Amino acid sequence: MSQVNVSVSPLAVSVKEARFRRPLRIAIFGFGTVGSSVARILAESKPEGLELTHVYNRGVARKRAEWAGANVVWSEDAEAVLASDVDVIVELAGGLDPAGAWVRKALEAGKSAVTANKKLIAFHGVELERLAEAKGGHLKYGAAVAGGIPVIPGLEQGLAGDRIERIEGILNGTCNFILSKMEAGAEFDAVLAEAQAKGYAEADPTEDVGGFDARAKLAILMRLALRVEVDPESIIPKTITSVTAVDFSYARDLGCTIRQVARAHKGAGPLAATVGPMLVDLRSPLAWSRGTENMVVLSGHYGGDVVFSGHGAGGHPTAVAVVSDLLALAHGSRRVEIPSSPAEVGGEFEVPHYVRFLVNDRPGIVSEITGALARERINIRAIVQKPGYPQDALPFVVTVEPCKSSALKRALASIRTLDCMREEPLDLQMLE
Amino acid sequence: MSQVNVSVSPLAVSVKEARFRRPLRIAIFGFGTVGSSVARILAESKPEGLELTHVYNRGVARKRAEWAGANVVWSEDAEAVLASDVDVIVELAGGLDPAGAWVRKALEAGKSAVTANKKLIAFHGVELERLAEAKGGHLKYGAAVAGGIPVIPGLEQGLAGDRIERIEGILNGTCNFILSKMEAGAEFDAVLAEAQAKGYAEADPTEDVGGFDARAKLAILMRLALRVEVDPESIIPKTITSVTAVDFSYARDLGCTIRQVARAHKGAGPLAATVGPMLVDLRSPLAWSRGTENMVVLSGHYGGDVVFSGHGAGGHPTAVAVVSDLLALAHGSRRVEIPSSPAEVGGEFEVPHYVRFLVNDRPGIVSEITGALARERINIRAIVQKPGYPQDALPFVVTVEPCKSSALKRALASIRTLDCMREEPLDLQMLE
Repeated sequence: MSQVNVSVSPLAVSVKEARFRRPLRIAIFGFGTVGSSVARILAESKPEGLELTHVYNRGVARKRAEWAGANVVWSEDAEAVLASDVDVIVELAGGLDPAGAWVRKALEAGKSAVTANKKLIAFHGVELERLAEAKGGHLKYGAAVAGGIPVIPGLEQGLAGDRIERIEGILNGTCNFILSKMEAGAEFDAVLAEAQAKGYAEADPTEDVGGFDARAKLAILMRLALRVEVDPESIIPKTITSVTAVDFSYARDLGCTIRQVARAHKGAGPLAATVGPMLVDLRSPLAWSRGTENMVVLSGHYGGDVVFSGHGAGGHPTAVAVVSDLLALAHGSRRVEIPSSPAEVGGEFEVPHYVRFLVNDRPGIVSEITGALARERINIRAIVQKPGYPQDALPFVVTVEPCKSSALKRALASIRTLDCMREEPLDLQMLE
Repeated sequence: MSQVNVSVSPLAVSVKEARFRRPLRIAIFGFGTVGSSVARILAESKPEGLELTHVYNRGVARKRAEWAGANVVWSEDAEAVLASDVDVIVELAGGLDPAGAWVRKALEAGKSAVTANKKLIAFHGVELERLAEAKGGHLKYGAAVAGGIPVIPGLEQGLAGDRIERIEGILNGTCNFILSKMEAGAEFDAVLAEAQAKGYAEADPTEDVGGFDARAKLAILMRLALRVEVDPESIIPKTITSVTAVDFSYARDLGCTIRQVARAHKGAGPLAATVGPMLVDLRSPLAWSRGTENMVVLSGHYGGDVVFSGHGAGGHPTAVAVVSDLLALAHGSRRVEIPSSPAEVGGEFEVPHYVRFLVNDRPGIVSEITGALARERINIRAIVQKPGYPQDALPFVVTVEPCKSSALKRALASIRTLDCMREEPLDLQMLE
């Protein structure tokens, strides 16, 4: 055997060394819903080894909460908190700036950081992890994807021994709320207004409905699960705003419903990743998710499919993930380092599609559409035209056998020039 | 503040210290399906920091596999392997003895142990963890519950910040295979024979169908999730063998199916835990599991329900959990220590029940049965009697509103003395 036989087992490094000699001193940056939930759990559960010492927020006076602990320093001076003797900052402000600067500064100083900031991790996670490692601190972000569902710890610990090949996830609770309400008969505008009233959706919902939030989370999962570092902007999202009640009606006839799905696949060919509304079989796990639930399906080469679901967002579930990360730090738990390398999202999915047309009816339309598909060698699976729609705005649906997205795109480019087309055809991937 | 302010952050303990100076030397004890899968993954994936050096098995000559590595020592002398320079033993023999003695010996010597042995961990986990800690080694058993599904890492890492109050799980793939086949119309004996032919069930299936396997797993989850140490034998299991095609037919009429469920609840009152066939709503996650799948639903005080599902057994999924544990050891990852304390399973569930009677029909039966229930102040939810059964062996069903198990037990004790009863009434809990 080529190994030198040293007398000390590599595991014998003092088992006590990582136990806290004193509690971890914690500063929360951003005392909104999640931040106050974190403080609430710390105050109620009093987990050993964790002590909230600082809270930073703009206009912090209105945030001050006695229950969070008599010794907490409430500050609106971020620099002073960063320069203090805190061991960990919990960054809950979101966005790239100034959140990124705070995290960087904390790591530079050898402190650790826990964050729920998917955007920061999606765009700068690799660089920040390297910084943490170089300076002797840790960066943890279990709350950045699927909030209260332990997908990230599951990937780092329980699935590290597998080789994950496919990710399919419902990663945005707002879209899932909207689409599952539409499935039950509501119209988009009404549900969006309800989501906004309930605090599930922002005044400008683009980040959610446009797929930008989900793609940041997908990029993070891709690194941990598929072990590839991608530019999140290379994943092109599709908005859910083009999905209508008509589509849910047709989907139901096809034994499906519609969900915003983030999916990525790493097989023999180039890496493929996308986010958008898709048809999901009513018998598949992704169709079970309701309301603001999140769900992630990971397919491993050895272990097969593993499904995680639960409350992906909201103050308490997200705060559970943050407190769990803090406990892991206090107990000296390290994530299993998963080697990853830069990669391009250059591949295409070769999957079945649902295409809904809205036409001003006249003879020959089906023949022209199917002809355009045939020229790209795309096989038709089903043509569905339900009665009861006006003839000058007639929706009908064609589903096609698995084909390359690029081929379908070319066919649709030719179809959309037909004089009978009332609007852009809606093209959705189908999950099988 | 009462804390002494030391100048070194508790997290600054050399970040490199736990990195392997040489690979972990691994001995597999038991080279069956799971053992050879572990070796297969190590040989194919070559994860950094892990080296298979020894395999112990009785009659090891017939097990020898060149692909596992040229340097592997194949041995049928367990003592010699334990006395060697291996760092970790992977115990896959199962059962309390001699597996327990090997694990104990390895830990005594300061080595670490990874095991998939639910029985050993359910009965001796606490003691073995203390031993590991005292001697500077580690004990990991991510594969002991729900094999390839990262429930244990999820509990130790991502949910450690929550306070779990309820566990509901499908923890035995054999029972789930049998019951989901029966749901589709098969009879128990035929499905059991099929499960045995496919290697899903043992020649003596008592451990599985009687609920003993699931209760060991439940006891492990109770310690990690509810933080209670219980005697597994204090959880009284019910066999699935009393469930018949008639019950599936009635269950369907009630919008339910039947699954073997392990459940535990820790609320304000005494701890309750049980394992057995139960009615589960067709819309609930537990009804989605098919074939040998496992599923665990954990309900947290802060984070709400989290669902895990996937392949709970089989060589590859279980081996993924084992290799993940080995990687965690190699990377110096520690589990978040979850404090637990001894507890008695002394509580009762107060849940609705399904009771199926088989009677020799005569006037007055319903009145006598409902009278006996009324005397225990149990409210009836539904009485269902389907046509098409012989009058001298007539099955009919009463479902009752949530009531204490003890009250229902007394009512059934009185009912079973009725002359018309053809067999013991079948009493199943209903999950809501």
